[in-house]
Amino acid sequence: MSGRRLFLTFEGIDGSGKSTQARLLAETLRAAGHDVVLTREPGGSPGAEEIRRLVLEGDPDRWSAETEILLFTAARRDHLERTIEPALAAGKIVICDRFADSTRMYQGLSRGDLRALVDQLHALMIRREPDLTLLIDMDPDTGLARAKGRQGAEERFEDFGPDLQRRMRKGFLDLAKEFPNRFRVIDGNRDVDSVARDVAEIVHQTLRPLQQT
Amino acid sequence: MSGRRLFLTFEGIDGSGKSTQARLLAETLRAAGHDVVLTREPGGSPGAEEIRRLVLEGDPDRWSAETEILLFTAARRDHLERTIEPALAAGKIVICDRFADSTRMYQGLSRGDLRALVDQLHALMIRREPDLTLLIDMDPDTGLARAKGRQGAEERFEDFGPDLQRRMRKGFLDLAKEFPNRFRVIDGNRDVDSVARDVAEIVHQTLRPLQQT
Ligand SMILES: Nc1ncnc2c1ncn2[C@@H]1O[C@H](COP(=O)(O)OP(=O)(O)OP(=O)(O)O)[C@@H](O)[C@H]1O
Ligand SMILES: Nc1ncnc2c1ncn2[C@@H]1O[C@H](COP(=O)(O)OP(=O)(O)OP(=O)(O)O)[C@@H](O)[C@H]1O
Ligand SMILES: [Mg+2]
Ligand SMILES: [Mg+2]
Repeated sequence: MSGRRLFLTFEGIDGSGKSTQARLLAETLRAAGHDVVLTREPGGSPGAEEIRRLVLEGDPDRWSAETEILLFTAARRDHLERTIEPALAAGKIVICDRFADSTRMYQGLSRGDLRALVDQLHALMIRREPDLTLLIDMDPDTGLARAKGRQGAEERFEDFGPDLQRRMRKGFLDLAKEFPNRFRVIDGNRDVDSVARDVAEIVHQTLRPLQQT
Repeated sequence: MSGRRLFLTFEGIDGSGKSTQARLLAETLRAAGHDVVLTREPGGSPGAEEIRRLVLEGDPDRWSAETEILLFTAARRDHLERTIEPALAAGKIVICDRFADSTRMYQGLSRGDLRALVDQLHALMIRREPDLTLLIDMDPDTGLARAKGRQGAEERFEDFGPDLQRRMRKGFLDLAKEFPNRFRVIDGNRDVDSVARDVAEIVHQTLRPLQQT
């Protein structure tokens, strides 16, 4: 099977199950004979992974919000050119764990003018939008508990309060309303398999009309 | 003496004497009692120097032209925020060895649409222009010979031909015509001291009216 080019992204608050569901979906689609590239942001290509390290390591105040947005855009541009576009051009399905919506949300939520900046840089340098974005929506407290449960994750989440998680949940739901054509909201407050079944069903519906053309 | 805030940049082809003249001018101005910050691009702040290493080290094909422009813009933004703007706000004279004009030239010269991209990113993320840009203009062959004379520079200049240097000379002269208010062209085909005298005279003329207000 080939020629099912499709660009899918997973979005949602920390610990909502994006990486888990992206991996399961890749397995399901591969089992059905699809050619799948599973990737993630920030990172996803050798150059973008280097930029990721530059942004995420070291003192959190090392970069201003504006420089951070530029670095994320540089990483996304590299990821797009080296990993995503070639895979789509070869007719593959690309599943990406976080993409531009995460930048719109995390950088854009802090200051309104930064959301505008993210959008302008996107329009100039990225342009590509996913065909389908799966937003795993869930109760912020559950997400926080799950994220804390992962080994080595404690420190990273120390300064994350439930209030921030709640604002982020709302931020993602607002994005889903802003881009209703490509967003699908999935209830993530359930066991892994139930969520995975929903994900597979939505992707199946999206692939069906493509297969007929 | 204080309050002589002025943003000066040196531009010109490789080996034209920018770093030499920037250093001499800093010495002259300091001797006259001015508070001077001497800096350079790419780099000029700890973060920008890290981005510089990311761009300049490794395989030259590692980054596309577009990603490279984004990384240079990120470095310039950091340099501006952490080094240039604070110095200007404190009333200092900032001398910068290469700045945005070098990006306009080197990235913009290869493809016309890249010059447009450089300009759009500049308008979005940088905006600051120098008060005075000193273009050291010179015969490309002389520049090439001088640059080759510097220790360890051989390899870097192996693939630089006189043709490329000629195109770059013209590119910088075209920029000077594009921004006539801030550009001053200096004949660099002379000994270091003669060039330095011209530089000092032009800077002196620029500072005089500022000192009267
Ligand atoms: N539906 C679920 N029910 C219970 N636990 C889950 C569920 N989905 C994922 N988990 C667990 O919760 C933790 C977070 O899941 P995962 O890493 O997939 O989330 P994420 O959205 O990728 O998080 P991050 O944004 O931090 O990368 C993991 O330990 C995972 O095994
Ligand atoms: N007017 C001059 N006459 C002769 N030699 C010079 C003159 N100015 C500079 N040089 C020498 O030429 C070489 C290049 O000078 P310099 O490093 O200042 O140029 P540059 O424009 O900064 O080059 P690059 O673009 O490669 O950084 C050095 O060895 C320097 O000592
Ligand atoms: Mg994850
Ligand atoms: Mg130099």
